[in-house]
Amino acid sequence: MADYTLFFNPMSRALIAKWALEEAGADYDLFPVEWESKPAELFAANPLGKIPALIHHRAEGDLAVSEGAAICHYIAETAAPALLPNDGEKADYFRMMFFAAGPLEAAISNKAQGWVPDGERAELTLGYGSFERVAAMLDGWFAERDYVCGERFTMADVYVGSQVDWGLRFASIPAGENLDAYAARLRDRPAYAATMGGIPG
Amino acid sequence: MADYTLFFNPMSRALIAKWALEEAGADYDLFPVEWESKPAELFAANPLGKIPALIHHRAEGDLAVSEGAAICHYIAETAAPALLPNDGEKADYFRMMFFAAGPLEAAISNKAQGWVPDGERAELTLGYGSFERVAAMLDGWFAERDYVCGERFTMADVYVGSQVDWGLRFASIPAGENLDAYAARLRDRPAYAATMGGIPG
Repeated sequence: MADYTLFFNPMSRALIAKWALEEAGADYDLFPVEWESKPAELFAANPLGKIPALIHHRAEGDLAVSEGAAICHYIAETAAPALLPNDGEKADYFRMMFFAAGPLEAAISNKAQGWVPDGERAELTLGYGSFERVAAMLDGWFAERDYVCGERFTMADVYVGSQVDWGLRFASIPAGENLDAYAARLRDRPAYAATMGGIPG
Repeated sequence: MADYTLFFNPMSRALIAKWALEEAGADYDLFPVEWESKPAELFAANPLGKIPALIHHRAEGDLAVSEGAAICHYIAETAAPALLPNDGEKADYFRMMFFAAGPLEAAISNKAQGWVPDGERAELTLGYGSFERVAAMLDGWFAERDYVCGERFTMADVYVGSQVDWGLRFASIPAGENLDAYAARLRDRPAYAATMGGIPG
């Protein structure tokens, strides 16, 4: 048995987790998930029935992980320590992982639904404030850095980078030279190509 | 100078970070933030101007951290290794940190705005699906566990627990014996009392 099983559908965010496994050089199997007939095994691993969901097969027993960002980080913790942040990188790594999983994700999703905070009070209540400020924060980050943690690729780039890559593909975040250059750096990676190579650009 | 500076307002989510610092027994100062006149230092640490934001004063130079969950985890990484998860706890720790920062936060915030996904397609597009499923997942987690990682309190309980505690206080998540019992366990902690003791229940 492989070390990991990934619940997978090629037209889904499970691609993020597959890219993370490829970056880690991990030994894994894919468990295909069809939207119309989700397997019971998926609900056992993630009661929300969402993918990606990952099972780590350990001698001590299986562990299940859900949430894309958590899966990326967990894979680095267990299979790719070189992709974890060093002491000086941890602040950037974790803030940007949680920024991408929280405010950025919420701002993009709500905009897609046509949900726009109405006035300052709504922006204060919402964790992310406004889409425009979140997008400016993201763009500003990569104005000064090649990768999430500066000069070096880490697992945070798989998760944050997937948000940027998909955001640019689907025009759900504004293009610009900073994000375009960041996405181009990521698309050059062999593990990215091995995962996304067949996905229309 | 203390090891950490926390940008703080007592009527805000910055309480989460203060609780984390108290749990860690960390040496920290508070930097007061008034909504009407946010200090330039805050924007330097977090371009979004949101609190909590934390500065870690290191011999090698200061580092800034934002996002509540990232701050909690970063404090554990740097000041309270006993509150980090062990190998068998990492899956639960990270999935629930990202679940609380992503789907749970988004579901609660959007419900407060009156934004409800309209039909299955909207639920698929939104990362969290529906408020009801997210709330059921949270309740189910604590039906089987005393803490996020099972039997032992970790830093994940500060962040996830703050969401539960505040959700119950403001009735933004449904009460029930599982979450009530979890919140009661947290409110018994000296570091919780030191932080939230003055906050009306």
